Amino acid sequence: MTASTDLDDLDDLAYDVFAKACPSRGTLEHVTGRWGGLTLGALYEGSLRFNELRRRVDGVSEKMLSQTLHALERDGLVHREAQPTNPPRVDYELTPLGRRVAERLLALIHCVEGAMDDVLAARERYDATRGAR
Amino acid sequence: MTASTDLDDLDDLAYDVFAKACPSRGTLEHVTGRWGGLTLGALYEGSLRFNELRRRVDGVSEKMLSQTLHALERDGLVHREAQPTNPPRVDYELTPLGRRVAERLLALIHCVEGAMDDVLAARERYDATRGAR
Repeated sequence: MTASTDLDDLDDLAYDVFAKACPSRGTLEHVTGRWGGLTLGALYEGSLRFNELRRRVDGVSEKMLSQTLHALERDGLVHREAQPTNPPRVDYELTPLGRRVAERLLALIHCVEGAMDDVLAARERYDATRGAR
Repeated sequence: MTASTDLDDLDDLAYDVFAKACPSRGTLEHVTGRWGGLTLGALYEGSLRFNELRRRVDGVSEKMLSQTLHALERDGLVHREAQPTNPPRVDYELTPLGRRVAERLLALIHCVEGAMDDVLAARERYDATRGAR
């Protein structure tokens, strides 16, 4: 057994979203939460200012977007850059870690979007069966 | 422009999680919600009975797991199979569509688990800076 295998095993033991107390569960929730996911997805296309982000993430309130950005910044997924201009201008962009996570998230989002015809057909079948009971 | 390109364009217009009213947003929430994501991840390893699932998805209540399974079944991602045994036995398994979605979700989960050392270091830096202000 090599040292690198030992480290891999250690990593496997260290973080597991299936375990209630694992901190990875909280981060997964920041990433996949209603607004967190859309925020990461929007920033994958490039850096955006707060109001640009708010327009892109249709339906988010100012307060929720602000909380979402704080959580993602704290987790090291989003970088907040205050420009020394007058009036002050704040840009948000993904960190390299945020890009890695956003790539996987977007693959999931595109998979779900592409599956929606099947999902809606399944819902119709399900509701018809339930209604007939 | 070919017919297939036209169809691709139509698909792009049809479903967009960034649009508030798009039904794909609801399905994405079923897939990435706290319990939906863990349930899909657990079932990716094979079919499970209700109580097996409940043990695997550490911390979920009976009520929440039941609601989660109903939503995933309605979306056509999970198949519920009642065995004609006595006592009755109910197995849950992913549909082919559920497997495609779960694959992307697990790639995201593993990415987040693998990033946790960096995430926790980022949190320490963030909290130290905030505390010093």
